Amino acid sequence: MTEIYNFSAGPAMLPSDVLHHAQKEMIDWNGSGMSVMEMSHRGKEYLSIAAKAEQDLRTLMAIPDNYKVLFLQGGASSQFSMIPMNLFDNKGDSADYINTGAWSKKAIAEAKKYGNINVVASSEDNNFTSVPSFADWTLNKNAKYVHYTPNETIGGVEFNFIPDTGDIPLIADMSSTILSRPIDVSKFGMIYAGAQKNIGPAGLTIVIIRDDLIGSAIDGTPAMFDYTTHVKNDSMYNTPPTYGWYLAGLVFKYLLDKGGLEAMAKINERKANKLYEAIDSSDFYSSPVDLQYRSWMNIPFTLKDANLDADFLSGAAERGLVTLKGHRSVGGMRASIYNAMPEAGVDTLISFMQEFATQNA
Amino acid sequence: MTEIYNFSAGPAMLPSDVLHHAQKEMIDWNGSGMSVMEMSHRGKEYLSIAAKAEQDLRTLMAIPDNYKVLFLQGGASSQFSMIPMNLFDNKGDSADYINTGAWSKKAIAEAKKYGNINVVASSEDNNFTSVPSFADWTLNKNAKYVHYTPNETIGGVEFNFIPDTGDIPLIADMSSTILSRPIDVSKFGMIYAGAQKNIGPAGLTIVIIRDDLIGSAIDGTPAMFDYTTHVKNDSMYNTPPTYGWYLAGLVFKYLLDKGGLEAMAKINERKANKLYEAIDSSDFYSSPVDLQYRSWMNIPFTLKDANLDADFLSGAAERGLVTLKGHRSVGGMRASIYNAMPEAGVDTLISFMQEFATQNA
Repeated sequence: MTEIYNFSAGPAMLPSDVLHHAQKEMIDWNGSGMSVMEMSHRGKEYLSIAAKAEQDLRTLMAIPDNYKVLFLQGGASSQFSMIPMNLFDNKGDSADYINTGAWSKKAIAEAKKYGNINVVASSEDNNFTSVPSFADWTLNKNAKYVHYTPNETIGGVEFNFIPDTGDIPLIADMSSTILSRPIDVSKFGMIYAGAQKNIGPAGLTIVIIRDDLIGSAIDGTPAMFDYTTHVKNDSMYNTPPTYGWYLAGLVFKYLLDKGGLEAMAKINERKANKLYEAIDSSDFYSSPVDLQYRSWMNIPFTLKDANLDADFLSGAAERGLVTLKGHRSVGGMRASIYNAMPEAGVDTLISFMQEFATQNA
Repeated sequence: MTEIYNFSAGPAMLPSDVLHHAQKEMIDWNGSGMSVMEMSHRGKEYLSIAAKAEQDLRTLMAIPDNYKVLFLQGGASSQFSMIPMNLFDNKGDSADYINTGAWSKKAIAEAKKYGNINVVASSEDNNFTSVPSFADWTLNKNAKYVHYTPNETIGGVEFNFIPDTGDIPLIADMSSTILSRPIDVSKFGMIYAGAQKNIGPAGLTIVIIRDDLIGSAIDGTPAMFDYTTHVKNDSMYNTPPTYGWYLAGLVFKYLLDKGGLEAMAKINERKANKLYEAIDSSDFYSSPVDLQYRSWMNIPFTLKDANLDADFLSGAAERGLVTLKGHRSVGGMRASIYNAMPEAGVDTLISFMQEFATQNA
């Protein structure tokens, strides 16, 4: 059977070792006679799984002690509301947002329900193919926080710097870049990420929040949207997504065993560079993204003739290269190559791209 | 190895057949070369899984066409907020709530943030061991809805009737009773349930809502807490909890194959009756719950001497009978015997109870 390389932007590939491990203990975790899915979240077995996952994530990302790690539900889309609901005190409060694409825009639209949102920098003018130069950002001194999207999953644009916002807390939607390389968590007030790209299965959301930002939510905030609720209850105010949390733990352990995020960064940079090289060295393919801000994780590219897209996709699928169709707003192709995409998958894609270009030159 | 019977109130046992099926196709679903966890929720493979699950649930519960079925995140605790946020139009609106225990109380506390909540009947006076007689309920004509908890997971109290609220929509938290027997969905405006008891793994919440109740949410409602958001997007506004949805689908199929909810009701009634019989026929054990309102799903019982509790629990565990400790607010033991608890598990528990009573008489 052909090996399948799945370039989905999310839910996405999981490390094969992790899936095999989970399969092996699906029916009986560690001699307990229970599947992890069947365990009470208040029982000692599950509590040990949950604590280990958090500890391994803290080690992996070198998360300082003054940050809480929450394992929540609802995806980044829920965070878009939770952030202003928790960080604003009054309706008149304001926050600064950077608009670099589809996910920034969703975060902005939702935040506007709760206060004054200033879009202080945007790359909309160049169709979200770049990152606005930091020198041109006009940050507001009274902003409660600054929000940005370090990696835009759809546009394939990634920041190559962490904005210095001084005393104003910086908040980042890292859904599609978390765990792809080391980052200095202390530069952020809060980091959040949906799990379904680089962490684990869909239905789990990780929030890493600095202690001083956990406060009182605005009136009308649902208990489930209040960070304090989850902090006070160690993410177990109600039943958490136990199986997703467990699988995330397996991924964290796997990454530690592989050498941690520095090791992943080297592999990710190499995988991305060879794919960009294949695109740039050809007249047949092109990348719309500014050279400086090309994502390591999501790589959109177009064929010289969009009429060939369908042939490209079917030829790719024959070679086990699936879910390559670009987002409808961008067109062309998109190869999402998260940690779990083997380098062999990228190599196979590049070979096919070269072959297809030759045949259709 | 001893067979493990896990009496957890939730997350709880899953049918062994379902777990084995999921284990078998963990790495490769249906020849796709992908785990279900790795599939794009917008791809044809996953869409077929999602649609089949909904169709099978509709068949199983005979859900009329004028009801939407949503597959959401956040648990019943999120519904406690979503219901008033969506069904109220103004801050002055009111709803009637029935208070029959711990989960009713949580629903009431949360709803109070959004309007006037009238607790029109309560069993608090008898320590939540019964259901308030329907004849004494004083329903308000202007209530936007009536909310109740047909089965209280902690107290082990279950309604033996569906309240007739006339034109006022009846809303039920069925987390711990859904799929245990046939119900007439048309008698409800909305039914909701966390999955982790009788449906599938934690992190999935099912909402069954009548079309005319899907309207405009109050100002400040997060997009993710607006039923309209999810209805318009077939529960895929953002990435849904794909693996939980898939597993729920396997459970629905399993129940259909077993003869549906009428077949389950017969088994559940038999399982519950024999356990209550064992409790009532002994001077050693007792049930605090009113005979008329004893749950088929959650069966709390006490030993004549609470000092024997620890011995009971350790003796039970030696026989593979686990997670029997009662909720701290009730004490004693609690046996949760959802659909997936084999009748042999109940039989083994009863044998042990009799043996333990004899030894400690």
